[in-house]
Amino acid sequence: MEYYPAPLRRLIRLMARLPGIGEKTAERLALYLLSAGAAQVEELARGIVEVKQKVRLCSRCFSLSDDELCAVCSNPARDAALVCVVEQPGDMVALEKSGGYTGLYHVLSGVLSPLNGVGPDEIRVRELIERVAAGGVREVVLATGTSVEGEATAVYLSGRLRDFPVGVTRIASGVPMGGDLKYVDQVTLKRAMESRRALG
Amino acid sequence: MEYYPAPLRRLIRLMARLPGIGEKTAERLALYLLSAGAAQVEELARGIVEVKQKVRLCSRCFSLSDDELCAVCSNPARDAALVCVVEQPGDMVALEKSGGYTGLYHVLSGVLSPLNGVGPDEIRVRELIERVAAGGVREVVLATGTSVEGEATAVYLSGRLRDFPVGVTRIASGVPMGGDLKYVDQVTLKRAMESRRALG
Repeated sequence: MEYYPAPLRRLIRLMARLPGIGEKTAERLALYLLSAGAAQVEELARGIVEVKQKVRLCSRCFSLSDDELCAVCSNPARDAALVCVVEQPGDMVALEKSGGYTGLYHVLSGVLSPLNGVGPDEIRVRELIERVAAGGVREVVLATGTSVEGEATAVYLSGRLRDFPVGVTRIASGVPMGGDLKYVDQVTLKRAMESRRALG
Repeated sequence: MEYYPAPLRRLIRLMARLPGIGEKTAERLALYLLSAGAAQVEELARGIVEVKQKVRLCSRCFSLSDDELCAVCSNPARDAALVCVVEQPGDMVALEKSGGYTGLYHVLSGVLSPLNGVGPDEIRVRELIERVAAGGVREVVLATGTSVEGEATAVYLSGRLRDFPVGVTRIASGVPMGGDLKYVDQVTLKRAMESRRALG
């Protein structure tokens, strides 16, 4: 590494700070950028700066947006009485891709994690409660992850929402579609068996 | 993807154009940059632009440099009569890291590859011949890769250098150090057997 010129070493170091990018990959990417066309390189640098400048949070659901309201919240065809609570913007995108949901979202920006010092005040719990208290919400779907923290967050939120005239549901967990049972972990299988449902 | 705001989609698309970065990784990196500190993001953008602006090729060996001569060529302690021919700047860095070489380099910027339209005029063969013709070179070590193209390039260069009063050598190929013979491919084993040398 110390054999590369200083600007290249600096870029490799900056690249290697990105998550999941090791020193070898950073070196490969930096060498690629060095050999790439000036237009592509400048476009990438501009794209990186612009994403910070132009992307903000939707004022209603706190997902990523380039406007006051995100594309989902500003879509009149969506069911505004149905609110799905997710951990991060990426989770919302995953649900949107699945195509099975027509309501709105609420992005917590995290999960409760006492060990890491994340309590209800560190994520957007208050904003969710206020949104439900303001009325017009029929059902809250808790779609936090199925990790220990995600489950605990769902339990906590369902407790906080108990006093409101709103239905609270949890996304189903069980064996993933296309999954071979012998490759599914024991906790998932146990949950799938407990949550079995009648057919027909 | 179409559910992210436009500037984020653009960054994901630009990231996914980098070699070895798929759409999922590009999405992860773009989301990370969005959440990262402004200072880190601007530093990265600046690093990308600066590497193109400040890094150039050493005028003697064509490796990467931020000056007229690279760090190796400008080091008086290096043996200027020994020239190692490599394909790319990264190969030179790999040899430098190994610590076993005290001469200078010549970076071809490619290998002969007739199928891809790369002939001797597309890589820095002429510059190597001129450097040897200018005198002062005792030995040329051909350290192109051991791929078919790398081998062919070494054979071609040794032919071109035959008429000069210069020693031409090829780096050894054989079983990698620490290698278990049963995991080494047949071509390498055959070469290792053919190139066996007397001990003691």
